[in-house]
Amino acid sequence: MKSYGDSNSGNCLKVKWVCDRLALPYSWIEIDTLKGGSRTPEFLKLNGWGQVPTVELDDGRTLAQSNAIIRYLARGSDLVPVDPYRAAQMDAWMFWEQNTHEPYVAVCRFHIVYLGKAVAELDPNLVKRGYAALDHLERHLAGTRFLVGEAFSLADVSLVAYTRVAHEGGLDLDRYPVIRRWIADVERVLGLPPAR
Amino acid sequence: MKSYGDSNSGNCLKVKWVCDRLALPYSWIEIDTLKGGSRTPEFLKLNGWGQVPTVELDDGRTLAQSNAIIRYLARGSDLVPVDPYRAAQMDAWMFWEQNTHEPYVAVCRFHIVYLGKAVAELDPNLVKRGYAALDHLERHLAGTRFLVGEAFSLADVSLVAYTRVAHEGGLDLDRYPVIRRWIADVERVLGLPPAR
Repeated sequence: MKSYGDSNSGNCLKVKWVCDRLALPYSWIEIDTLKGGSRTPEFLKLNGWGQVPTVELDDGRTLAQSNAIIRYLARGSDLVPVDPYRAAQMDAWMFWEQNTHEPYVAVCRFHIVYLGKAVAELDPNLVKRGYAALDHLERHLAGTRFLVGEAFSLADVSLVAYTRVAHEGGLDLDRYPVIRRWIADVERVLGLPPAR
Repeated sequence: MKSYGDSNSGNCLKVKWVCDRLALPYSWIEIDTLKGGSRTPEFLKLNGWGQVPTVELDDGRTLAQSNAIIRYLARGSDLVPVDPYRAAQMDAWMFWEQNTHEPYVAVCRFHIVYLGKAVAELDPNLVKRGYAALDHLERHLAGTRFLVGEAFSLADVSLVAYTRVAHEGGLDLDRYPVIRRWIADVERVLGLPPAR
């Protein structure tokens, strides 16, 4: 399998982490999105959305959207709850990540890390909504070890990707002791060095 | 099962349509989100995100996030492809809906239908991105009957919800003959009267 991605993008790292965790063989093909690497005619044949991550299976078929990719790669593994209700809770977190967390927490970081803006130049609405997403995670994780109960799942992979580097987008993780405990737990499960 | 929703919200209608299509019994509980109906202390006990749709199963357990709910309710039905790769393509469209379609196509409509703005008052960036999402759908659907090949799936339910009422948000569906053909096909499958 070929995994096309930007190794500084949380969405792309989700795919790498799941492959590594499940010992799925893949070759990583680095795509520089800022230089238009995901909008070349060749790349658009792989993914009409022009987005990374994209994976190309050994038979040439491709898949897009980070959470859909990891859900496919991890099917039948211990990263997906067997119980349908728990799997649905996992899905709910993953959809929430895409509609209410990533558009703010990741986008704050994008403006600073990729576009070189200062924290003070960020749209205050982005920052406010980023903190609202973190507030929600802090409240939820106070009552549970991982996002869906005691068992690690794809929901944790999905949500940790941009949460662990939220400080790079000017969001202050020092306010969130419960999130920091959870990040450390997830980094331990995935064998990652601490992001901060 | 109790289904809490706003019957003018595409996200909520997804749940209703799937229940109706699969003949799942439910009672519909109308929530007026503009009047704060999803932020009351009682409602926040059902869904800590304070969002509709929310479903309450017969045993009292709850589920949130429209696409996660319909994925749960439709598991094992003909609305979810049996083939894992096709199911992953369905998931990809559903995640794309939440990160690249709904935040623009639905939000344009929200400003007009719920907040009473005029089309000319819409943020041009919202409108531009709404059209970009529709452009992508038009291109994709030119080569396929439904979003994931010839078989109707939850991807169609998810994407049609706000696409069929995009004109209520000031987006001109007359530009999109292929999308209009697909909307008509999906409305026929779901037994819905035409939205326009």
